Amino acid sequence: MSTPISVPRGLKNVIVTDTEIGDVRGEEGFYHYRQYDATQLARTATFEDVWHLMVFGTLPSPEQSAAFVRRIGALRVIDDETVELLRRVAGPGVEPLAALRVALAALGVADRPTFDMDRPELVDAALRTGAVVPTILAAAHRISQGLDVLDPDPEADHVSDYLRMATGSSDAEAADSLRTYLITTIDHGFNASTFAGRVVASTGSDMTSSVLGALGAFLGPRHGGAPSRALAALDEIGDPANTRDWVRGRIERGEIVMGFGHAVYRTRDPRAELLKSVVRQRYDSDLVRQAMAVEAEIEAAINELKPGRRLYANVEFYAGVLMHEVGLPVDMFTPTFGVARVVGWTANILEQVAEAKIIRPVARYVGPEPVRAE
Amino acid sequence: MSTPISVPRGLKNVIVTDTEIGDVRGEEGFYHYRQYDATQLARTATFEDVWHLMVFGTLPSPEQSAAFVRRIGALRVIDDETVELLRRVAGPGVEPLAALRVALAALGVADRPTFDMDRPELVDAALRTGAVVPTILAAAHRISQGLDVLDPDPEADHVSDYLRMATGSSDAEAADSLRTYLITTIDHGFNASTFAGRVVASTGSDMTSSVLGALGAFLGPRHGGAPSRALAALDEIGDPANTRDWVRGRIERGEIVMGFGHAVYRTRDPRAELLKSVVRQRYDSDLVRQAMAVEAEIEAAINELKPGRRLYANVEFYAGVLMHEVGLPVDMFTPTFGVARVVGWTANILEQVAEAKIIRPVARYVGPEPVRAE
Repeated sequence: MSTPISVPRGLKNVIVTDTEIGDVRGEEGFYHYRQYDATQLARTATFEDVWHLMVFGTLPSPEQSAAFVRRIGALRVIDDETVELLRRVAGPGVEPLAALRVALAALGVADRPTFDMDRPELVDAALRTGAVVPTILAAAHRISQGLDVLDPDPEADHVSDYLRMATGSSDAEAADSLRTYLITTIDHGFNASTFAGRVVASTGSDMTSSVLGALGAFLGPRHGGAPSRALAALDEIGDPANTRDWVRGRIERGEIVMGFGHAVYRTRDPRAELLKSVVRQRYDSDLVRQAMAVEAEIEAAINELKPGRRLYANVEFYAGVLMHEVGLPVDMFTPTFGVARVVGWTANILEQVAEAKIIRPVARYVGPEPVRAE
Repeated sequence: MSTPISVPRGLKNVIVTDTEIGDVRGEEGFYHYRQYDATQLARTATFEDVWHLMVFGTLPSPEQSAAFVRRIGALRVIDDETVELLRRVAGPGVEPLAALRVALAALGVADRPTFDMDRPELVDAALRTGAVVPTILAAAHRISQGLDVLDPDPEADHVSDYLRMATGSSDAEAADSLRTYLITTIDHGFNASTFAGRVVASTGSDMTSSVLGALGAFLGPRHGGAPSRALAALDEIGDPANTRDWVRGRIERGEIVMGFGHAVYRTRDPRAELLKSVVRQRYDSDLVRQAMAVEAEIEAAINELKPGRRLYANVEFYAGVLMHEVGLPVDMFTPTFGVARVVGWTANILEQVAEAKIIRPVARYVGPEPVRAE
């Protein structure tokens, strides 16, 4: 046994693996998927093309792109048994993501260890898992609200089909706004849910188990990225003129200002900037005007109350506004984040499987000295 | 941002946390739960008393012990809906542990983040989760085999009730042998499934998510501890006289010898030693005689074929023999391991929740240099 190695708590800044999937450059306010600027992809690419990039490492040719859209469309379909299962578990008050956990586990009862699969089978499992998530979440949401379940349309693109299944309707502008949001949030460096998924995958476990591990961490409040909180803050503030007092109150109570600040970015969050530009250009609404006014007030108030400590709006802040404008209800904000992030998880899980090395640190025993029996 | 810290791959020997739950001393061939010798507990304590020790940190008084047995007994009961769900998913060929994943997710649809719970609620969630596992696994097994599901008896002790639910019958000697095995395998240092559970818990997620994370890693072939493999090896070898050729064949093909060797122990595995003594004393069977003869032959053959490299029987080797002797079918060997290990997971998850610190390392981007759009 080598000597145990002490590192910062929570493995902060400890390099667990190499990755080619992407990175965040916090000092530069920049993040990328593979070698591509992520916000640039979000402005210009289709969701499926970025998905292809994440999983296969390359943007598809036009022919590959069309084939991939068809492949994902077909995989979006779930069987009647799964819908029936969701009817049993997704009652009123049940979060769609909690119902997703059940449905993924049920769809995965015959899943096999990644050890036993060749690469095409593994990729198929990854794509299948990513593709069913919006269908399941939309169905779970509608069941919990007493609404009809809407079947997927395998001919449609992934984003507009999700928006229609979740809300009952989708138009080109709303789908395009949502596409931008979903692409921005597919991945973001080595986040907590991605790490959890990779830990499970590192044991050689199955795709279902690995995604459930990621999803479990995603449900943790420390994971971050719950866009409903920022919208709730806007609701609480009401008139932007109240912002300064609201911020002061939170700071005095030692509370965080929801939707502001980020662990990695030392600049404006490039995701927030992009989503802000989308909602400002497209939605001439009281909510958008309020959000922009409140954002400016919060920045000024933090600057005044905590001099030298600059906090900028993070992705949560405008994600909630955007999702509201495209017609998604608040209970679908975090699930919608999940629709995108599952693509990042599965790409990371595939990379971890290829690494073929268990992630297994140690703990230091600090309890009372044990007594040996003999 | 501080500078990223390079450590060995897979976080090997990297200390991720402090623990008071237990440890393995590989050089000494010793492991402990809290401050107690684990094999000593396995010889003398009840399963519920060790469970109490793992979760609360102390062995119970006689009154506490009786109350804890009643508490666990009541929590072992599952509702008809869960049995009905298992009938839908646990068809022929479905592994009980895959069905367990579905049932735990379904029982947890209303689970809340550990953030929102006070300590008694959290402990209750941990005990409830641990208590239902044998009931669910036994039901899933019997459904998959076309057998009647047997209800738990809340008045019975945990081990004998599990044995009866799984096999249809339980006697005092078999239950005591199984008790010994289950206690030996509740925990074993910072194993891969325990770590996965703690990673999920570190985000503030719910108990269900954390246990599903642990269970996902437990299903991975690299996790180790599949007692059926060792029994399969005994079956393959047949006459102990064939052992040397069998071992030579495996070594020449670069295969591992199932049931032999351990990543941490440099001595005999204390769990294997204890289980061997139990089966030798209690079961005068061909299988036990064969196992002991094969063990001796394998040790001698490895010593001869790989001089200087001593490999001893690990816990897998005699666990399979013991489980066979108490009447458990092979498809319930790994699930039975899970019945014990879930207790260790939940104790570790509770400890992680108390630590209130996210486990989140970083990755090093090694792909092509990204191009920034603007």
